Amino acid sequence: MIAVIGRGNFGRALLRLLNTHLADWETESLDKAPDSSRIPNIDILRRARVVIPAVPIASFGEVLRQIAPYLQPGTIVIDVCTIKAHTARQMHSLLPEHVELIACHPLFGPESLAAAGWQLKGLNLVIWAERIQAERYDRIREGLRDLGLNVIELSPQDHDRILARSQFLSLLIGAVLVRMDIQSTEMNTRSFDELLDVRDTTCHDYGILRDVFRFNSACDATLAELEKTLGDIGAELRKSRLPGPG
Amino acid sequence: MIAVIGRGNFGRALLRLLNTHLADWETESLDKAPDSSRIPNIDILRRARVVIPAVPIASFGEVLRQIAPYLQPGTIVIDVCTIKAHTARQMHSLLPEHVELIACHPLFGPESLAAAGWQLKGLNLVIWAERIQAERYDRIREGLRDLGLNVIELSPQDHDRILARSQFLSLLIGAVLVRMDIQSTEMNTRSFDELLDVRDTTCHDYGILRDVFRFNSACDATLAELEKTLGDIGAELRKSRLPGPG
Repeated sequence: MIAVIGRGNFGRALLRLLNTHLADWETESLDKAPDSSRIPNIDILRRARVVIPAVPIASFGEVLRQIAPYLQPGTIVIDVCTIKAHTARQMHSLLPEHVELIACHPLFGPESLAAAGWQLKGLNLVIWAERIQAERYDRIREGLRDLGLNVIELSPQDHDRILARSQFLSLLIGAVLVRMDIQSTEMNTRSFDELLDVRDTTCHDYGILRDVFRFNSACDATLAELEKTLGDIGAELRKSRLPGPG
Repeated sequence: MIAVIGRGNFGRALLRLLNTHLADWETESLDKAPDSSRIPNIDILRRARVVIPAVPIASFGEVLRQIAPYLQPGTIVIDVCTIKAHTARQMHSLLPEHVELIACHPLFGPESLAAAGWQLKGLNLVIWAERIQAERYDRIREGLRDLGLNVIELSPQDHDRILARSQFLSLLIGAVLVRMDIQSTEMNTRSFDELLDVRDTTCHDYGILRDVFRFNSACDATLAELEKTLGDIGAELRKSRLPGPG
């Protein structure tokens, strides 16, 4: 049985995917972390062979603390947060040794899944064997490939470094466009339509942007470079407006 | 006969479109503005029923000055620059009264045409009867519609105001991405792929960005708002990194 903790946008999308593409597995959805008065949730955690916390990065450690006492030997915990190094460290420090650990980042969310008709073929997914028996990990990785996913093996450190110059940038520019209230016009060009696509794909992700920046220090350099480059080009444009020497 | 002045990216694309979609019209391509030693070009200008300068905005006025003496009564000059109010004023002040004037902005270039397989269906084109007999203008506008274009009638002032919050923004963000040398990664998300699309569609357009800013003062406010919004969000992100009171 696979237990998904969290019923936010991504948790609900994940459940839909599991029920569609892994229909022979039983799945359970936990609304929030269990407490002793809620026996059904504890029972689910005890029975789960795989536990996937689908919760905000900022809540991840607290959820691990709450579920740790109930996880059985051999249960696999899969982290699916948008950043990887910080949450991998939390899994190592907060979960018992008898639990196995996979770091995973599905590089898609509800918007891109809807655009892909909820099919997985060709979607990117990063995975890393954080602490798990090699055969079990290989079976899971190949199972994900069999679903059509483009499975990419990257360490949490490499993942976070690359993300700081890719997804972080689109999340950031999307948030800027939303804040500026940029809207479609009656005379869009192709490049402006593409910019609106960035806005639409990221428009619900301000919380993710904030957490990615907060817990991935490689984003500092990207933010500073973006600010500096915009400043440089802005200065060039304003200078070109001035009357020339001619 | 339609004479296209300029053999840059857009001039070549325009010739290809004319030869494909208006095959019953004769077309001539002029490499640059004529001088008295180059009779063939002057002859072309004298024979042309339609003249389309496809030159950088910054050269537009000089080209008009050079061709003005040779244009015959009733010849239609169509401005296809990316901004419209500045060039419309130049046409009125630099061309003789017996020439008719259309302001036009095809909202597509070589990149978007290639992506559309050089088909015009559904592509946006802004047009305005700057100084032309109504029947002639109506025939041209309907002819463009018959080619499948989405013909939008907007005054040069309205066009420039809208462009400052649409195409100018995608040109600017595209230029920033090029300057930062942002590249595709092994783990792209959908939103980052869309951001790379903006880069790819605008990557040859730094000169257009500069001219659009220089000759469309409405772009000032967009640049300032983009800088301020990025600064605000950057400050929020950095603040969220600081240890909270809890």
